[in-house]
Amino acid sequence: MQVSAETRRRAVLAAQGQVPFDLLLTDAQVVDMATGEVREADVGIVGALIASVHPRGTRQDARETHALNGAWISPGLMDTHVHLESSHLPPARYAEIVLAQGTTAVFWDPHELANVLGIEGVRYAVEASRDLPLQVMIAAPSSVPSTPGLEMSGADFAGKEMETLLSWPEVNGVAEVMDMHGVLHGSERMMDILQAGLESGKLIEGHARGLSGAELQAYLAAGVTSDHELTSAEDALEKLRAGLTLEIRGSHPYLLPDIVAALKTLPHLSSQITVCTDDVAPDQLLEKGGIIALLNLLIAHGLPAVDVLRFATLNAAIRLQRNDLGLVAAGRRADLVVFDSLDTLRAKRVYVGGELIAEEGKILQPLTESTHLQVPRNTLHLSPLTEDDFALRVEGVRNGVARLRHIRGARFTQWGEVDVTIRDGKVCIPDGFSLIWVQHRHGRHEAKPQVALLEGWGELRGAIATSYSHDSHNLVVLGRDAAQMVKAANQLITSGGGMALAQHDEVIAHVAMPIAGMLSDLPPEALAEQFRTLRDRSSDIADWEPPYRVFKAIEGTCLACNAGPHLTDLGLTDGTTRQIVNPVISCQDIPLESEKAEHNGSGK
Amino acid sequence: MQVSAETRRRAVLAAQGQVPFDLLLTDAQVVDMATGEVREADVGIVGALIASVHPRGTRQDARETHALNGAWISPGLMDTHVHLESSHLPPARYAEIVLAQGTTAVFWDPHELANVLGIEGVRYAVEASRDLPLQVMIAAPSSVPSTPGLEMSGADFAGKEMETLLSWPEVNGVAEVMDMHGVLHGSERMMDILQAGLESGKLIEGHARGLSGAELQAYLAAGVTSDHELTSAEDALEKLRAGLTLEIRGSHPYLLPDIVAALKTLPHLSSQITVCTDDVAPDQLLEKGGIIALLNLLIAHGLPAVDVLRFATLNAAIRLQRNDLGLVAAGRRADLVVFDSLDTLRAKRVYVGGELIAEEGKILQPLTESTHLQVPRNTLHLSPLTEDDFALRVEGVRNGVARLRHIRGARFTQWGEVDVTIRDGKVCIPDGFSLIWVQHRHGRHEAKPQVALLEGWGELRGAIATSYSHDSHNLVVLGRDAAQMVKAANQLITSGGGMALAQHDEVIAHVAMPIAGMLSDLPPEALAEQFRTLRDRSSDIADWEPPYRVFKAIEGTCLACNAGPHLTDLGLTDGTTRQIVNPVISCQDIPLESEKAEHNGSGK
Repeated sequence: MQVSAETRRRAVLAAQGQVPFDLLLTDAQVVDMATGEVREADVGIVGALIASVHPRGTRQDARETHALNGAWISPGLMDTHVHLESSHLPPARYAEIVLAQGTTAVFWDPHELANVLGIEGVRYAVEASRDLPLQVMIAAPSSVPSTPGLEMSGADFAGKEMETLLSWPEVNGVAEVMDMHGVLHGSERMMDILQAGLESGKLIEGHARGLSGAELQAYLAAGVTSDHELTSAEDALEKLRAGLTLEIRGSHPYLLPDIVAALKTLPHLSSQITVCTDDVAPDQLLEKGGIIALLNLLIAHGLPAVDVLRFATLNAAIRLQRNDLGLVAAGRRADLVVFDSLDTLRAKRVYVGGELIAEEGKILQPLTESTHLQVPRNTLHLSPLTEDDFALRVEGVRNGVARLRHIRGARFTQWGEVDVTIRDGKVCIPDGFSLIWVQHRHGRHEAKPQVALLEGWGELRGAIATSYSHDSHNLVVLGRDAAQMVKAANQLITSGGGMALAQHDEVIAHVAMPIAGMLSDLPPEALAEQFRTLRDRSSDIADWEPPYRVFKAIEGTCLACNAGPHLTDLGLTDGTTRQIVNPVISCQDIPLESEKAEHNGSGK
Repeated sequence: MQVSAETRRRAVLAAQGQVPFDLLLTDAQVVDMATGEVREADVGIVGALIASVHPRGTRQDARETHALNGAWISPGLMDTHVHLESSHLPPARYAEIVLAQGTTAVFWDPHELANVLGIEGVRYAVEASRDLPLQVMIAAPSSVPSTPGLEMSGADFAGKEMETLLSWPEVNGVAEVMDMHGVLHGSERMMDILQAGLESGKLIEGHARGLSGAELQAYLAAGVTSDHELTSAEDALEKLRAGLTLEIRGSHPYLLPDIVAALKTLPHLSSQITVCTDDVAPDQLLEKGGIIALLNLLIAHGLPAVDVLRFATLNAAIRLQRNDLGLVAAGRRADLVVFDSLDTLRAKRVYVGGELIAEEGKILQPLTESTHLQVPRNTLHLSPLTEDDFALRVEGVRNGVARLRHIRGARFTQWGEVDVTIRDGKVCIPDGFSLIWVQHRHGRHEAKPQVALLEGWGELRGAIATSYSHDSHNLVVLGRDAAQMVKAANQLITSGGGMALAQHDEVIAHVAMPIAGMLSDLPPEALAEQFRTLRDRSSDIADWEPPYRVFKAIEGTCLACNAGPHLTDLGLTDGTTRQIVNPVISCQDIPLESEKAEHNGSGK
């Protein structure tokens, strides 16, 4: 990241015409993020540095010249909050895609990797992104696990782990503080984590979902300075006024027209507005794009392109305290995007560190990882499962009836109650219900699988299994038929994790994610194709609308940090009361006639 | 500076109404730097922190409540570039003045102290400002001396010294890089200094006086990111477009109308605009004010008050990478100014760290320095001088004539040439000329005093002496009559430095500056009174217009880093060629008749 003294000396001389530039971009229009102007200028580059931005045609001496035919030059785009893991690609593969779209810097919260692998997950994130042309700033995950006491992930981070991570120069801050409950109630763990962040002088990123009024103020008072969990224009305005840096997110596009309209009512377009992707699946990343897609939506909704680009460049550089990024200006890194229109942004060319690395949306050379990189595989610590592992049982009842609590709905779950019958020690799944099943997969405790009834998903026509299940990434299986559930689950145990669908005793779709149980080894296009198949075939099994959201919905049923019931490796949890709930409201063992007879007989 | 975990926990609870605020500011209008809005709100404070900014009247529970009667609350003002030494006050005394005016944070380049005392000068700056309510961020002086080879100050800073200073947590960056010549020519010393700054990740402050076009680009390429040496509106626009953060300075008020007009032509009012005072003398600081005076000028010239305040608050916090300052927002420091009008800003009340510390322009309690503070005294390493020390001599000529180079003018000096006669080994000062005299005062070399002819100051009617002479702060004396020069100089040697005027064998005005030869022990009002007397009486001796600028003019004649001739402890220097110049163009020894006779006699 550091430019050598020699390069800098050469840039100083080149700016004055005493040595030639390495590269000269001519015939361009520079988008000036500082003044809001667009002006004709040429850009001279030395090594990774911009050496000079000067009037068109005033210099010709360069080892190489690229004439840009009047195209626009912007600083490289920056993503202020992302979980690379959602792309299910290792950093090098992810970087190839987003670089080609013009994103040259990201602030990565490796929250999922950390929940699986602990400190080693963050180390993998650091090492796997070292030396990439993408500037990857790593954040120290603050929510490992995201809901302590209600779930177990692969590690526990408290103040001490946070101090360790923040002492690494590659770690640039505390990642999104998801445990809002802990913050607002002054939990010792969250206060220690925040204090470590504050003492490090690094950033503290927020996750202020639904916070408003006094709670929002309290959350800021704790030291958090940003948020990407915007739920409405009013929410966005309240948070901007409260002093948070907004990270406008592309994943909820229906909010954007209102947010744009609200921003346009303000006397000043704040420097505290940035953009982020948060979570984007590989097929969506490839087909629709990451930051670039969001910028085009903001432009389409009526914000001037220069202002929108400022969100993704100078404002992001301010947020991330990177004086070397965010402007097309001498002394800054030559991370540049060339657009041939400001009406709709499309990265015609992308330069990183003064090198042309992508053209017309394609990376020119595949990126390579260090051969020394230790890739975390074999992280699913589970033995093959049998049908018996998937039975829902009520303790002490072999045959009889019970009234059970269950989960209704998916992303926004609610409690339900239902009467069931029990036969041969197994609950008979009522009509219209299915099962949700979670098994701890990190080898940190010997707990038995957890099973619960699920309403609102209909009667699943097969099984859906995933090892990518926020936030602890235990193994989750949905289904109604234990045989199919076994099939799907064992496929993932064999492949080291991933996502699978099973039906009619066959695995009908499967994405292997052997790296940490969440990242693929496939080329992005192949992975995207598998993802499309997975989504398409998921409608064979579930009637979720839209069908492609089915895996998101599964995540929702296990996301213990949210309000409502969720199933985790520790049991059925209540996100509101923060307690683990006994699903059995009442039960009665009613021995069958044959059993009674047997009992009587044995007693003889 | 760090808020304790306990305070933060209490702020989180107070924001939610679970414990009372320490202080509640009610009935106020908050100036929102993020959105540009002004809105009615109350501000709840816990310890040094803002805990909550909430709708008026929604909370009453607080240990203390200040009703503000509709007044405006702004974040504390920030000065992005200042040399406290120009106030000739130690930091505690300086802080009392500027805090009362609403300035709660400054970025201090202790350039003058470092030129006298080296690393120990910076340490004094750090220690003397530790624990003050003023947030003092220290910069590591980059120009010690400012013109290596042409002058000697009390120390030499190169890359190694810069690394040492930047390793201190209290040092926040490299101070204004004045050696533009060294930067543009890639001098090893400047490249090492810049590289140390770049590797530290801290700020690199500029001094880009007169730089434009290719040279300006080169200066940025070297890694500099700000400038306060604006010379015109065009200069300001070019620098803003080039990517520098502007530090608009109050000391050149005639530039402000044009700069304001130019900024108003831009599509976007950049976050890269801040304000600074640079150098302000104690009487001016007291009478006109520092940052506050500049803000009022900018408002008077047509910028909206909210935008002007943003320069001094949020934009400055961005520049100085202080996420804890610059907004009236929960989680930030409760450094606040209360104004009773936005038409003309006048700090009605100033809160620092949640404490009311000034009211109606007056500090409520004098600030105290640590009793452990080691104050640098006795830094003028000179023995009392005699008239003979002030003679201008031409080597090898006892009686005769010579043609000599001399200095014409003051702040913008030019070379002159003049024919002189020499009597008894001393140059007879021609009509209309005076002498300038410089003596190294740091004890680092045994060089003899340097004397040169000075044109453009008329025939001085006495002597002016100062130990505050940029940038090396050697002892400088101007005069025509050696007796008066001795009088003024010896007064300063006795008092450990300062400024003095002598006439008719009496010291007619004197400001003692016993701390490092540049700071006074007096209360600010008394010092200002002495300064006024000094300036007033200087017109008895020199016809400089305006008379109060006479000491500025003296500084100009010794400022070796500028173009043109200057006198330093090493001799007559040329700022353009960067060489020390022999003042003697030609000379001829013409023995007097009496001497000839004597010579003949002795030869007999």
